Amino acid sequence: MRVPLWASAATLLIALQPATVAARDTSATRIPDEALAVAPQLREAALASRLGYEITESLTTEVGPRMAGSEADARAVKWAQAKFHELGFDKVWLEPVTFPKWIRRSESGHVLGENAQPLTLTALGGSPGGTVEGEVVRFADLAALEAAPAGSLAGKIAFVDYRMERARDGSGYGPGSRVRSRGPSEAIEAGASGFLMRSAGTDSHRNPHTGITRFDDGLTPIPSAALSVPDAEQLTRLLALRPQQVRMQIDAGWDGEATSHNVIGEITGSSKPGEVVLIGAHLDSWDLGTGAVDDAAGVGITMAAAKLIADLPQRPARTIRVVAFANEEQGLYGGKAYAAAHADALTAHQIAAESDFGAGRVYGYSSSAPAHAAEADRQIAQALAPLGIEHMPGKGGPGPDISPFAAQGLAWARLAQDGTDYFDLHHTPDDTLDKIDPDAVAQNVAAYAVFAYLAASAQGGFGSGPKAAGE
Amino acid sequence: MRVPLWASAATLLIALQPATVAARDTSATRIPDEALAVAPQLREAALASRLGYEITESLTTEVGPRMAGSEADARAVKWAQAKFHELGFDKVWLEPVTFPKWIRRSESGHVLGENAQPLTLTALGGSPGGTVEGEVVRFADLAALEAAPAGSLAGKIAFVDYRMERARDGSGYGPGSRVRSRGPSEAIEAGASGFLMRSAGTDSHRNPHTGITRFDDGLTPIPSAALSVPDAEQLTRLLALRPQQVRMQIDAGWDGEATSHNVIGEITGSSKPGEVVLIGAHLDSWDLGTGAVDDAAGVGITMAAAKLIADLPQRPARTIRVVAFANEEQGLYGGKAYAAAHADALTAHQIAAESDFGAGRVYGYSSSAPAHAAEADRQIAQALAPLGIEHMPGKGGPGPDISPFAAQGLAWARLAQDGTDYFDLHHTPDDTLDKIDPDAVAQNVAAYAVFAYLAASAQGGFGSGPKAAGE
Repeated sequence: MRVPLWASAATLLIALQPATVAARDTSATRIPDEALAVAPQLREAALASRLGYEITESLTTEVGPRMAGSEADARAVKWAQAKFHELGFDKVWLEPVTFPKWIRRSESGHVLGENAQPLTLTALGGSPGGTVEGEVVRFADLAALEAAPAGSLAGKIAFVDYRMERARDGSGYGPGSRVRSRGPSEAIEAGASGFLMRSAGTDSHRNPHTGITRFDDGLTPIPSAALSVPDAEQLTRLLALRPQQVRMQIDAGWDGEATSHNVIGEITGSSKPGEVVLIGAHLDSWDLGTGAVDDAAGVGITMAAAKLIADLPQRPARTIRVVAFANEEQGLYGGKAYAAAHADALTAHQIAAESDFGAGRVYGYSSSAPAHAAEADRQIAQALAPLGIEHMPGKGGPGPDISPFAAQGLAWARLAQDGTDYFDLHHTPDDTLDKIDPDAVAQNVAAYAVFAYLAASAQGGFGSGPKAAGE
Repeated sequence: MRVPLWASAATLLIALQPATVAARDTSATRIPDEALAVAPQLREAALASRLGYEITESLTTEVGPRMAGSEADARAVKWAQAKFHELGFDKVWLEPVTFPKWIRRSESGHVLGENAQPLTLTALGGSPGGTVEGEVVRFADLAALEAAPAGSLAGKIAFVDYRMERARDGSGYGPGSRVRSRGPSEAIEAGASGFLMRSAGTDSHRNPHTGITRFDDGLTPIPSAALSVPDAEQLTRLLALRPQQVRMQIDAGWDGEATSHNVIGEITGSSKPGEVVLIGAHLDSWDLGTGAVDDAAGVGITMAAAKLIADLPQRPARTIRVVAFANEEQGLYGGKAYAAAHADALTAHQIAAESDFGAGRVYGYSSSAPAHAAEADRQIAQALAPLGIEHMPGKGGPGPDISPFAAQGLAWARLAQDGTDYFDLHHTPDDTLDKIDPDAVAQNVAAYAVFAYLAASAQGGFGSGPKAAGE
């Protein structure tokens, strides 16, 4: 069906919606003045509070690393449930999330021969176990590996030496993580028996960056690992001297299914308790560090923001729901399970924001707000401005765990964190509490508290509702 | 024998010397004007050269880690011998150095119980192997452990959580390394079955700092390890929650004797070839990193300095001898062997300087020059000043490998390097080439070249000669 360009998006959406779907609230959305008046006191209370940092400290210390499906992951679920209760949330519950379980047992790498020396590497999540010895073939980037003819790497180890770029918005991670996700399958297509990559990271420490990879259907997975940045540079120097044989020894692999849980806590709304503003983060972490910037900080920020709202003399109209998502790291399993479990309540979810980009200060605000909510969006941006947050309409997208629900039509907001240093730590052993600035966490808590409070006080919606086909 | 205070030190020394020892040259020492005129061109040539960095790169890349007695240590000896030849040194030879051999096989640590999580640690050099499980008892510093009554730590693991201070001159390392050298024996005295310490380091990365320890005679050694700084902080937080059980698993230990070599290269002096100015560094490294700042940089700096002197149109009067010492890390074995092998030639060694404090810029110059060499000392300092080097008479002491010979009476000079960041890397996996600034290495090469050239051109000595009893 062709539509005239002058048809408004809202009109068009209603026209396309199946009859069973509730009509979206498309009246102009505004934040009441009384709520706007509360925002500064909420902001200042958050800036003066160490609660977000304390929650982050509690999770990273008491549980430590908590890879999805591990014993520690189950402890993290209990921790989150107990923490919601301790903070006085009105409702606390678990929702099951089932996924394949991957285990890392050990890993090592060695250059063999006349320059014999160890290499510091870590298996990529999803890698099979195995010992591989072979000549290393270096590729400057993924495109170079993709161009390798089928069979050309038979018996060899492919090494993609792509250098990720540092950027405030983390934009270097797209091409960096693509090496991790696509590299192993491309290596197999060219016949390789092992895959190595320079870590998708911006640091220069001897801490490799793990992260999930996938193998294309029909391929036989090969041991796949990331070298620390200094080790990748060392291997490149060694390859400039002469051909190099490397041995990779990985003991890891998939081991059946595991069930973990999305842990959910609510601050019930005063007059529209069935309407939900969702904020969240993911509870699981990789196993190498203690998951401090990824993503205990997000858990601390969003739990603390809701708690500070609960401490106000008057609750907002709508419910604030905090979700600590299960198993983000290995494939957004918690986010997908949430979207599936709450599909019927999509429209009741007014808007959602996830904190999953470390513990740097928030510098930008944007959202998916449609035209009818533009004024409320502007009002929220104005209330965030004293925190040094710029309104950046049209920028960014939903956080990872809310993206499956956003794909169905959930409205989202983005509180963009300064990620300049995030990929120094992300997915490494070095992701530990000492890297976090409590003041920066407090600024994040202030941003989430103000955003969630105002969105939960708004009169009118932010555009959540089922997407029509092709929308 | 009591002597009047007005007796000059030199007179006194001669009076005390046995008759067989050659009299020291105590006439006033000066650097000839022609040599002083050459210093600026040597300095500028060094600053424009990347040779020091290139040698550092070669050793850390081609050999990598080279723990004393290992296969890689033997490769490092061959590398150094070949490098001296390649650089055109006039004489190159090896001198054997024998020492006990320590081997690290594996190491791990875990918090047990309700906060179960891994700890990143590394065995101290000299630690025995063994698996120890016990309650951790924390001590804020070494004095607190020393105060623990005998038997009070029976079945427990002592944990010294001393925080080393950052300083340009590395002065924080004294008390920091004392925890490592004394802590294990003190823990045994109190009955402990294991010893843990916060790494003697100033960083906050997940890279523990190894280093040698010793056990007092008569004690049964216990597994002894250093936690990375983030892990020490984590353990301290965990201990604030509840008592903690930790398991240490160390597979390491002494394994007979090994023989390595001091590798020596000379640029023969033009008119006094039997008189030697010694510069050097140590060739061995710990096993965790590639020994870049400790001490490939020193090897690169001193080899390059001598090579730049050799490239001058005219050689200095005296011989420049570069020594790449064996096994500094585990007890100055190379330095002691050198002092023993060359005891008869002590007086012929005019002065010595070692580079073993990383790759930071040289900021200070001092020496043991006695009064009769004060003018030459001042002349050298003046020639170094354009490199940003301050004359600091009376400061510091000889480098580690020349200290055994200095104890016998060898004159020494100190080119003090900025060590502000040195203990971020020292003895860790993170001691890799990428941490080194080639320009800073060039400044070091310039400093060593100017110093060695002027000392080798001096008319008169710097006070080397056998020390009298009690001197």
